[in-house]
Amino acid sequence: MSAIITLTTDFGLTDAYVAAMKGVILGINPGAKLIDICHSVKPQNIPQAAFVLSTACQFFPKRTIHMVVVDPGVGTERRAIILRTPQADFVAPDNGVLSYIVRQYPAGPVNASRRQVHLAPELEAVAINNPKFWRSPVSPTFHGRDIFAPVAAWLSLGSPLADFGEPVTSLAVLPLPLPCKASADTLVGHILHIDNFGNLITSIKSDDLPQQPITIEVGSQLISGLSRTYAEGKGLLALIGSSGYLEVAFEGGSASAFLGVEVGSEVKIRIIKQ
Amino acid sequence: MSAIITLTTDFGLTDAYVAAMKGVILGINPGAKLIDICHSVKPQNIPQAAFVLSTACQFFPKRTIHMVVVDPGVGTERRAIILRTPQADFVAPDNGVLSYIVRQYPAGPVNASRRQVHLAPELEAVAINNPKFWRSPVSPTFHGRDIFAPVAAWLSLGSPLADFGEPVTSLAVLPLPLPCKASADTLVGHILHIDNFGNLITSIKSDDLPQQPITIEVGSQLISGLSRTYAEGKGLLALIGSSGYLEVAFEGGSASAFLGVEVGSEVKIRIIKQ
Amino acid sequence: MSAIITLTTDFGLTDAYVAAMKGVILGINPGAKLIDICHSVKPQNIPQAAFVLSTACQFFPKRTIHMVVVDPGVGTERRAIILRTPQADFVAPDNGVLSYIVRQYPAGPVNASRRQVHLAPELEAVAINNPKFWRSPVSPTFHGRDIFAPVAAWLSLGSPLADFGEPVTSLAVLPLPLPCKASADTLVGHILHIDNFGNLITSIKSDDLPQQPITIEVGSQLISGLSRTYAEGKGLLALIGSSGYLEVAFEGGSASAFLGVEVGSEVKIRIIKQ
Repeated sequence: MSAIITLTTDFGLTDAYVAAMKGVILGINPGAKLIDICHSVKPQNIPQAAFVLSTACQFFPKRTIHMVVVDPGVGTERRAIILRTPQADFVAPDNGVLSYIVRQYPAGPVNASRRQVHLAPELEAVAINNPKFWRSPVSPTFHGRDIFAPVAAWLSLGSPLADFGEPVTSLAVLPLPLPCKASADTLVGHILHIDNFGNLITSIKSDDLPQQPITIEVGSQLISGLSRTYAEGKGLLALIGSSGYLEVAFEGGSASAFLGVEVGSEVKIRIIKQ
Repeated sequence: MSAIITLTTDFGLTDAYVAAMKGVILGINPGAKLIDICHSVKPQNIPQAAFVLSTACQFFPKRTIHMVVVDPGVGTERRAIILRTPQADFVAPDNGVLSYIVRQYPAGPVNASRRQVHLAPELEAVAINNPKFWRSPVSPTFHGRDIFAPVAAWLSLGSPLADFGEPVTSLAVLPLPLPCKASADTLVGHILHIDNFGNLITSIKSDDLPQQPITIEVGSQLISGLSRTYAEGKGLLALIGSSGYLEVAFEGGSASAFLGVEVGSEVKIRIIKQ
Repeated sequence: MSAIITLTTDFGLTDAYVAAMKGVILGINPGAKLIDICHSVKPQNIPQAAFVLSTACQFFPKRTIHMVVVDPGVGTERRAIILRTPQADFVAPDNGVLSYIVRQYPAGPVNASRRQVHLAPELEAVAINNPKFWRSPVSPTFHGRDIFAPVAAWLSLGSPLADFGEPVTSLAVLPLPLPCKASADTLVGHILHIDNFGNLITSIKSDDLPQQPITIEVGSQLISGLSRTYAEGKGLLALIGSSGYLEVAFEGGSASAFLGVEVGSEVKIRIIKQ
C-alpha cells in the first residue's frame, strides 16, 4: 500500500537514526512513501517540533500518517499515542508535541494543571500498548525505531486503530503562548519561530488583528502597517505569512539578525489613534 | 503517474516549507517521485541556485520536472514560468535561475539591458498565469507551495504546456561570468562555486583551456599543470572536475580554507612559455 | 523493480552531487526506492562513514542495496567492489568503509599489514571492473555518479553479481579500535562516535561488560553504574544505547559539550571492589 508517512524528529542529519526508522518501516510496508518534514528540531525542543509539524501537516493528502519523534522521556512512563483526526493520523509521544493539532478542534476542558486536554468528539486516540506491533526487543532509548516506526507502518497497511492499544480521552498539551490584550488598543504576542530566512513568525494570527491601522513593535523597532510581500523596498516590514501568522521580515536580509530577538521575545500590536 | 519532480530551494532544512510543497504535490499526483536537489542555497542567492541546478539536472531521465524556488520577488510582478527543453521541464520564477539551462541552447540576441534572452527554437516557455492550476487562496509570500508545486504536479500528470498560460519568447538571464582572454597567453576566469569539500569550481570549462602546458594562478598561489585525480600527493592541485569545469582542490583538505578565496575571486590561466 | 537503494556519502547537502547520483540511478531503474542514510560524513572520514552505515543497514529489509561513496582515492588504483552478505549488497570503494559489515562474519586471517581480511564463506565479493555497467565517459573524480550509481541501479534490476567483475576474496578493513583489558578489573575502550545529541558512543558493546557493578571513567568524570533511559534525573549517565554500544549521555544536554571529549578519547570501565 502506498500510504504517505511523514517524519519529524530532533535526530539531525549526521547520524543514521532517521534511516534506521525508514528501514524498519519499509520492512513492514515496502510501498510506504516516506517524506521528511524536519529532522533539525533542536534536541528535545518539543514546542519547536509542535510548531514545525503544524505548519506542514495541513498540506498533505487526507489520511497521511505523521510520525513525530521528539521524545526526551523515551523509555519512561510517558505514553506513546496515536491520534486520529478527520484529516490524518499522528504517531507520537504524548508530551505535547501534537498541541497545535489538538487545539484545532473545539477542545474539552483543560484540567487543573493545564497540561492535559480532553479530546473533541471528532478526535480519537489510543495509547500504544500492544507489543504485537513493536520490534523486539525494544531499546529503552530508541522507541522511534522500535515502537513508533513499526506502528506507523502497520497503521499504513490498514491495521485498525483499536488494535494498537486502549483508547485515551485526553492528551498532553503545551501552554501555547496565545496573544493577549494588554489594553483596549494593544495586543501582545510572542515570537513562536524564526525561520531559515530570519523571518520572525509570531503567535498572532491574521484573525487576531484589529481592522484599524496598526503599528508593530518588536525589538525596540516600530513598523507601521502591513506589507503584502517581502519585496516592497521597505527594509524591516511586517506581513501575514504563508501559515496565517503575523510575520516580521527584513527585505534582502534577516530580521532576526537585524533585531537581535529570539523565540519568546514580545511583539506588540497597537491601533494607531487617529 | 510516476513522473520525477526535483526540488531546488533556499528554504533550508529547519522549517517545514519544503515538506508543505511535497504535501501539495502528492495531493495532486500521489505517484510523483520527489527528489531533493538542494535546499541549502543561501537565502535569495539566485546565481548559486542556477549553478547547483545546472550540475544535477543533466543526469536525470528525460522529461523530469525540475522545480526551482529561489524567489526573492515572490508576490511581485516577476513572472512565474515553465520552460520546456528537449530534455526536461523547469518550473521556476523568471529571475535568471534557469540561466545555465537557457544558455545551453543557441540563444537569440540578448536585449539592451542584457538581462533578457530570446529563446532558441528548441525551447518553449509559458508564463504561469492560469489560476485553474493553483491552490486557492494563493499566499503572496509562498508561491512555491501555492503555484509552483501544484503546477509541477499537474504537469507531471500530463497537462499540456499551453494550458498553464501564455507563451513567452524571452526569459531573464543572469550576467554569467564567462572567462575572457586578458592577453594572447592569459585566460581569466572566476570562482563560480565552492563545494562541500572546499573545492573551487571555476567558470573555465575544459574546452576553454589551451592545448599547451599551463599554470593556474589563484589566491596568490601558482599551480603547474593539471592533475587527473584528487589523490596525487600534491597538496594544492587543479583538475577538470566532474561537471567539466576547471577545479582547484587541496588533497586531504580544503582549497577554500587553504587559499582564503571566495566565490567571485579571480583565476588566471597562463600558457607556459617554452 | 522497486528495490531499495540507500546512500551514504561525505558530499554534504549544499551541492548537487547526491542528486546527480539519484538521477543516474532513476534513469536505469525508475522504480528504485532511494533512501538517504547520511550525507554529512566529514569529508573523507572513512571510519565515521563505516560506523554510521553499520548502525543503520541492519534495520533495512533483506536484499537492500547500500551504496557508500566516501572515496578519497577516487580515480586511483583503489578497487571498487560489490560485497554480498546473506542480508544485503554493498557497493563501495574497497577502502575499509565496510569494515563493520565484514567483521560481523567469522573472518579469515588478517594479513601482515592488518589492512586486508579474507572473506568468510557466507560472503561474496567482486571487483567492479566491467565497464559495461558504467556511465561513459567516467570522470576520474566522481565514480559515485559514473560507476557506483549505475552499478547499484543495475544490481537492483537483478543483474548477476558475476557480471560486474572478477571475484575477490579479501577486502580492506580499518584497524577498528576494539576494547582491551588493561587489568583483571579494567576494560579500556574509546569513543567511536558523537551523535547529534552529544551522546558519546563507545567501542564497548554490552557483551563486553562484566556482570559485576561497574564505574565508567570518561573525561575525568566518574559515572557509577548503568542507567536504563536518558531521563533518570542524573545529569551525566551511562547506558546501553540503541545499537548495543555503551553510551555516555547528559540528561537534557550534551555529554560531549559537558566533558569536552572527542572521537578517540578513552573510556575506562572498572569493576567496583566489594
